[in-house]
Amino acid sequence: MEVGICKQEMLQKKKNAVLVDGVILNGPIMDSKAGEKFVEEACKIIMEEVIRKADDVTEKVCEWQAPETLKQILDLEMRDTGESHQKLLQLCRDVIQYSVKTSHPRFFNQLYAGIDYYSLVARFITEALNPSVYTYEVSPVFLLVEEAVIKKMIEFIGWEEGDGLFNPGGSVSNMYAMNLARYKFCPEIKEKGLSGLPRLVLFASEECHYSMKKAASFLGIGTENVYFIKTDERGKMVPEELEKQVQRARKEGSAPFLVCATAGTTVLGAFDPLDSIADICEKHGLWLHVDASWGGSALVSRKHRRLLHGIHRADSVAWNPHKMLLAGIQCCALLVKDNSGLLKKCYSAKAAYLFQQDKFYDVSYDTGDKSIQCSRRPDAFKFWLMWKALGTTGLEERVNRALALARYLVEEIKKREGFQLLLEPEYANVCFWYIPPSLRKMEDRPEFWQKLHQSSPAVKFTPVSSPGCML
Amino acid sequence: MEVGICKQEMLQKKKNAVLVDGVILNGPIMDSKAGEKFVEEACKIIMEEVIRKADDVTEKVCEWQAPETLKQILDLEMRDTGESHQKLLQLCRDVIQYSVKTSHPRFFNQLYAGIDYYSLVARFITEALNPSVYTYEVSPVFLLVEEAVIKKMIEFIGWEEGDGLFNPGGSVSNMYAMNLARYKFCPEIKEKGLSGLPRLVLFASEECHYSMKKAASFLGIGTENVYFIKTDERGKMVPEELEKQVQRARKEGSAPFLVCATAGTTVLGAFDPLDSIADICEKHGLWLHVDASWGGSALVSRKHRRLLHGIHRADSVAWNPHKMLLAGIQCCALLVKDNSGLLKKCYSAKAAYLFQQDKFYDVSYDTGDKSIQCSRRPDAFKFWLMWKALGTTGLEERVNRALALARYLVEEIKKREGFQLLLEPEYANVCFWYIPPSLRKMEDRPEFWQKLHQSSPAVKFTPVSSPGCML
Repeated sequence: MEVGICKQEMLQKKKNAVLVDGVILNGPIMDSKAGEKFVEEACKIIMEEVIRKADDVTEKVCEWQAPETLKQILDLEMRDTGESHQKLLQLCRDVIQYSVKTSHPRFFNQLYAGIDYYSLVARFITEALNPSVYTYEVSPVFLLVEEAVIKKMIEFIGWEEGDGLFNPGGSVSNMYAMNLARYKFCPEIKEKGLSGLPRLVLFASEECHYSMKKAASFLGIGTENVYFIKTDERGKMVPEELEKQVQRARKEGSAPFLVCATAGTTVLGAFDPLDSIADICEKHGLWLHVDASWGGSALVSRKHRRLLHGIHRADSVAWNPHKMLLAGIQCCALLVKDNSGLLKKCYSAKAAYLFQQDKFYDVSYDTGDKSIQCSRRPDAFKFWLMWKALGTTGLEERVNRALALARYLVEEIKKREGFQLLLEPEYANVCFWYIPPSLRKMEDRPEFWQKLHQSSPAVKFTPVSSPGCML
Repeated sequence: MEVGICKQEMLQKKKNAVLVDGVILNGPIMDSKAGEKFVEEACKIIMEEVIRKADDVTEKVCEWQAPETLKQILDLEMRDTGESHQKLLQLCRDVIQYSVKTSHPRFFNQLYAGIDYYSLVARFITEALNPSVYTYEVSPVFLLVEEAVIKKMIEFIGWEEGDGLFNPGGSVSNMYAMNLARYKFCPEIKEKGLSGLPRLVLFASEECHYSMKKAASFLGIGTENVYFIKTDERGKMVPEELEKQVQRARKEGSAPFLVCATAGTTVLGAFDPLDSIADICEKHGLWLHVDASWGGSALVSRKHRRLLHGIHRADSVAWNPHKMLLAGIQCCALLVKDNSGLLKKCYSAKAAYLFQQDKFYDVSYDTGDKSIQCSRRPDAFKFWLMWKALGTTGLEERVNRALALARYLVEEIKKREGFQLLLEPEYANVCFWYIPPSLRKMEDRPEFWQKLHQSSPAVKFTPVSSPGCML
């Protein structure tokens, strides 16, 4: 069945057709019945091929193909005329077949795995409604939901009040925080810019996420002005080293303004000592941002929240429920302790066409002007529906289970020949070497490490062609 | 039916249960059958309440409630224990009921309306697969699709080659372009930052989108260093005024580096004269960015693409297929003429944990390091599936129809008493005053305008309580 405007037929049917510039204005844009049927058919495929297979270990994580081969398999080209529904449904099947099933129990790539049915339903709802959360008039429910979720997340951080917003990623959250700290340090920068000012300097551990460098570059601060602080053998920022670097920056005549601590580093899963770092920030009048994009979810576990001890002393926190809690990419909150409107003052541009002040409701609900985006997705909603479904105890179980699985893996690594644990993890990251039989008797010399480094990529991808491949 | 881990029952069933830290590791996280059933039930609701009603004029655009009332109607609180599926499905119904149906034929808010079944299916697929497009190994299909879509968009701009990426919004596209222009102007800024440098200055029309100010502030350039160029009576940037302002900036000793032209301004729908602006940019060695977030879609119409005459001379273009083309929020591309790797050089941070160079495929497909985000959504895919379904001619019809509708509205406004057209539109924006009967005989004095300004918000919201309300 084909969809589209068939002008002849429509003109015959509609005697009152209004024709302007060759376009019939008072007919439907497309055959909605056929469109609905297409959605139904596609939903069946999604249900069968993605959702039902999500927990089937005998299915493949991915039908792997190299880029050039995959280009030949898929019909990627966009043409002048459209395709039939039948062809499109086959395309959907192909896309699913050659995509990675991140919900597969054996998908072991970065920072998330598994399926959450509730957040998935929430995402289907928001895709169907297609809202944008800038003003209450277009997104009444989603703005209230965002407010409720942020309030609850703030409770778990331990602040009495605060502010925040969902945005497209932990990297972007870190940028928001960096700019906010800069605004607090010197509000004039918003209008005047950095030209002619002393060099701004911020501090983060050498194990921090690469978005700190991206943010410093994007915000005009410069990557060289991120002073990386040494970490201890567990990957945690050493507070004494931070103190030294702050003093060094002062001596250089630069302007330290921000410390970015990490709660759950990307590689080692290390938690910086927030309490000691907060002491230093207080002493020097520095903004404390905690990048808890990965580690923040431990806050919902009574057992593990001690990992983030001192987080209530932070000025801002990045926390991504799309990672360990499985809320679906993207679900990322920036949370701010200030409740005096700092976020709005820093970010607002007061666009008159969107944020009129003479609406017939309380326009403080039009939170869009706090954002660097104009259109913004209702990412809080998927976390909210999941939280409603599981309850806090359900979220807690999810965290406890992930950390128990890590603990189990550690014990297995210790038992097995050829596996070498790098360090005892404190979170879900388990770092280890697999030493192939041919290297097990070799001495710890450069040649050994060179060969070992060659074997790691091979281990990562070896089972690719077999069912249940690892990525 | 309740979902969750029922430990007692599972322990009885599983004699080989592995218990670590009080967590059963080798059982399922949740009852997947119940989860799948929940998704199916919810999909039925979405189909009935959102998709089938999308073209029903007798349904309401929104069941309007003021914030405080809506809070009481919805059960927003997140609790320790989860809710039943029955309760959750009711919550989903409530969320839909009180949300704005942006697909409704009478939804007349900012910049988009209507439903596209194909992009909707694409979005359901990507939500179910939950990918992140940073590396080919986790997103093989979606990275190839993005490459194909960007290549095609570049064709329509008229460049022979180029680069680009999808990102979360036109505002963010504009930021990307601004930073890229700055990097091209002075690559050292990436490492050194702006401190100690001459004041950077950029130019945009006084009718440009508010994201220019947001971007200048965020990037450390400062809102005062956006020089707003006067527009003519149709809202188009006046090239002679641009020339004057560039010369003024040079005389001040500041460093002009970028002109942001607009193709389709937010309020008037004006198109800046790109060819004349490109001449000035060439003369002064300035980067030309075109914010075609709104107007870019006219490029697919043979009839209307002349609006963007000269766009091939731009260095970068922002274009949002989620607006007039209905690809679903968000679907926004930044396109760059440079094909020598400028985007990557400007944005890369070379994170070793993600962008290893010793993978077993061509790692040039790992495009994630061009982005300011880490996790990134496969937004190109919804545009691609829609394009496959409709063909270029189908996209073209969508644009032609929108502009024909605008033309029709203009003629109606001219015919009717009490309506006053502001200017003849060249795009889909139709700006008019409705003058209530009580004001029609009043003189054009401050009191008249004061009263007219009071009546506009009332007109906007009057039919709210009736079916088929306007927003």
